[in-house]
Amino acid sequence: MVIGGDAGGMAAATQARRRRPDLDIVALERGRWTSYSACGIPYLVAGDVGSFDDLVARTPDQFRQDHRIDVRMGHEATAIDLGAGRVEVRDLARGRTITMGYDHLMIGTGAHPIRPALPGIDADWIRGVQTLDDGCALLAQAKESRCRDVVVVGAGYIGLEMAEAFHRWGANVVLVEGNDVVMGRTLDPDLADQVGDAVRALGVKVRLGELVQGFEEGAVITDAGRIPADLVVLGLGVAPNSALAGEAGLTLGTRGAIEVDHRQRTSAEGVWAAGDCADTYHLVSRRRIHVALGTVANRTARVAGINIGGGYARFPGVVGTAITKVCGTEIARTGLSEQEATTAGFEYVAARIESSARAGYFPGAEPMTVKVLAERGTGRLLGGQIVGGTGAAKRIDTLATALHAEMTMDEIVDLDLSYAPPFSPVWDPVQVAARRATALL
Amino acid sequence: MVIGGDAGGMAAATQARRRRPDLDIVALERGRWTSYSACGIPYLVAGDVGSFDDLVARTPDQFRQDHRIDVRMGHEATAIDLGAGRVEVRDLARGRTITMGYDHLMIGTGAHPIRPALPGIDADWIRGVQTLDDGCALLAQAKESRCRDVVVVGAGYIGLEMAEAFHRWGANVVLVEGNDVVMGRTLDPDLADQVGDAVRALGVKVRLGELVQGFEEGAVITDAGRIPADLVVLGLGVAPNSALAGEAGLTLGTRGAIEVDHRQRTSAEGVWAAGDCADTYHLVSRRRIHVALGTVANRTARVAGINIGGGYARFPGVVGTAITKVCGTEIARTGLSEQEATTAGFEYVAARIESSARAGYFPGAEPMTVKVLAERGTGRLLGGQIVGGTGAAKRIDTLATALHAEMTMDEIVDLDLSYAPPFSPVWDPVQVAARRATALL
Repeated sequence: MVIGGDAGGMAAATQARRRRPDLDIVALERGRWTSYSACGIPYLVAGDVGSFDDLVARTPDQFRQDHRIDVRMGHEATAIDLGAGRVEVRDLARGRTITMGYDHLMIGTGAHPIRPALPGIDADWIRGVQTLDDGCALLAQAKESRCRDVVVVGAGYIGLEMAEAFHRWGANVVLVEGNDVVMGRTLDPDLADQVGDAVRALGVKVRLGELVQGFEEGAVITDAGRIPADLVVLGLGVAPNSALAGEAGLTLGTRGAIEVDHRQRTSAEGVWAAGDCADTYHLVSRRRIHVALGTVANRTARVAGINIGGGYARFPGVVGTAITKVCGTEIARTGLSEQEATTAGFEYVAARIESSARAGYFPGAEPMTVKVLAERGTGRLLGGQIVGGTGAAKRIDTLATALHAEMTMDEIVDLDLSYAPPFSPVWDPVQVAARRATALL
Repeated sequence: MVIGGDAGGMAAATQARRRRPDLDIVALERGRWTSYSACGIPYLVAGDVGSFDDLVARTPDQFRQDHRIDVRMGHEATAIDLGAGRVEVRDLARGRTITMGYDHLMIGTGAHPIRPALPGIDADWIRGVQTLDDGCALLAQAKESRCRDVVVVGAGYIGLEMAEAFHRWGANVVLVEGNDVVMGRTLDPDLADQVGDAVRALGVKVRLGELVQGFEEGAVITDAGRIPADLVVLGLGVAPNSALAGEAGLTLGTRGAIEVDHRQRTSAEGVWAAGDCADTYHLVSRRRIHVALGTVANRTARVAGINIGGGYARFPGVVGTAITKVCGTEIARTGLSEQEATTAGFEYVAARIESSARAGYFPGAEPMTVKVLAERGTGRLLGGQIVGGTGAAKRIDTLATALHAEMTMDEIVDLDLSYAPPFSPVWDPVQVAARRATALL
């Protein structure tokens, strides 16, 4: 039995099916969609993506026909009896509750946008960005001409992407962030400032260090005043949907996520979890963390599915890689930020360089900033951040791979990376940063 | 004393200077330019790069003023006396020969385009692509309207880049290649065919399996006929400029390149070599090879310079990474091709997949092909090749880094690579290829 029809559950289900043609697989999804790209929603709202059907990787019928998975839409698991191996299921359309047994239970319940308990937050013009239904509603509102004033609360990935999306529809967009910088949980302040400048250059009003206190009809109330708003988009991060698991007695870990081991086993025999509802392991800090990203959901679900299917797979962990863009500015990070490195007990040097994604003399060479953190003593890479123009951000993968391999700055300098004038200076910017770090070490 | 004013010699000289302010450094350059980007010449000829000055990273005066290096232009080393520690130097402008002593000799004499001994090949309308002078001459000819028929001999990187450059000036370009595919030394035939199709789609005539037998006024003679030509560009690869070193008694290795150890020491005490004139080590095949690339020249020269300056540096070797583009088609490779893997004694599985550089539903998602070779038994990555649209090729760096770390397919599948719809599908194409390989293993 699978609870949750998105990546965490369904990627596991298809892996298990591949190895065990004999399994009976039932999947419960309380919503209207299976396996969709939540990461695509900002681009749907922006108008880049033609229709929300494009975001659906596999429909319920595809799961039924191609994978023989009995997908039950509009069915919500309401209780798990770990001792008896049973799940109480609410059929939302028919309004009835049934009980179903399992040998293996795969939990992929995902996460939900954080909605702080502020006055007025439950109004329907205040929306998080998580499900395709959210996306459809936001797109409809973006297209309505009366949607003039949009306030985005929280300047993380989703906040920035949504601010750009509504800005492109011609709305007056105000981005309100309690922190002193945008992307403060992602980038160090020096690089975050560059992103803030890029967002302002778009025409979005950025209000930093300002705390939202509540909502009134047509306005967001902050500690600095009243901001007119026809629509509020919440970009305050997500929290795992782990209440069902917690009530059943499964151990919850970091930030309330379901604790799993490296094979995606929960604390109960025969019960597995993956995706945004589960915790994971950070290979650099060597601590358990909660990450809600499509890549991690797909990779952890694959591991769970292989194990459920009788194979052997282990998820080594993450290094904290993430990427996005705001208009022409690409943004990426991996490993630990300065603050995270300090919290994890590392001493480090930080090297920041300016370079470009093409040879300097090549037309269209846009500037890019690369920053790396290297551990004192060992010279080992601890993290990297990139902000720049076209072609900048995907270079983070080189640093992510180097983190998995625990490479030192010297080893990164020696990497045989690709070079041709349309693609890179002769020393790739990540290597220029590593050279600077070597000098500082 | 440094012989050669380009990357191999001068990057070493500046590194040595940084560590040893007291050194007397003399650098000899027989030509008119120092430290230029030979890789930029095709883009100069194509008109992408405004002037050939743009390709010069540092001028002789910059070396003199910023690094106190006594650069002597138009000076050619004509003999080395290893026993006495002396070099015979020809001052080309004054027509006189002098003798100069050295404590350390740094050889960075580079490479030259291969000119097979065919009838008529010495004509001045038959040009290789190596020095800035070649670039200037080719650009001048590209701009002349009488330069209608251009034949490019050899369909490697330089050949394809030059074919595109002249095509863009409106010339009728014929590409003649003795092999049955374009880029046959770089890519496996299946991916090479995609590149051949892209070149043909440009409007370049591609004649494969055709051997050039000689040149007559206004024509190239092949075993299949006569091809009209106002200009012939040779793209048959390069050979190391190692005659001077060989005559002095230094050991020459692979393909006549100067044999060096991992600190860039030649067979004689106090004599160093780096760049296109020296051999290097392939980390995957574990054999010595000759590679003429700007990246390798800069990295090996840096190592030589640190060592000459009294530091300690070791060059671990290369993994065979290269990248280019032909019009909108990006091409990259790293590690071993199928033929190279077989020659090196590996057994492998080859996995080829089609994906895209963006989420499939994102506008502008162009197709890309990724192929990986994985060693049988261990599952270790042996090599990778990519052909695709914008954003495809630089992903080769992930595979290059994985090769340095000797990663297996399972480890590549687990890499925490960056994902957002404008940058990648949720499984990066290199991971999709690794998953396919895992299944085949």
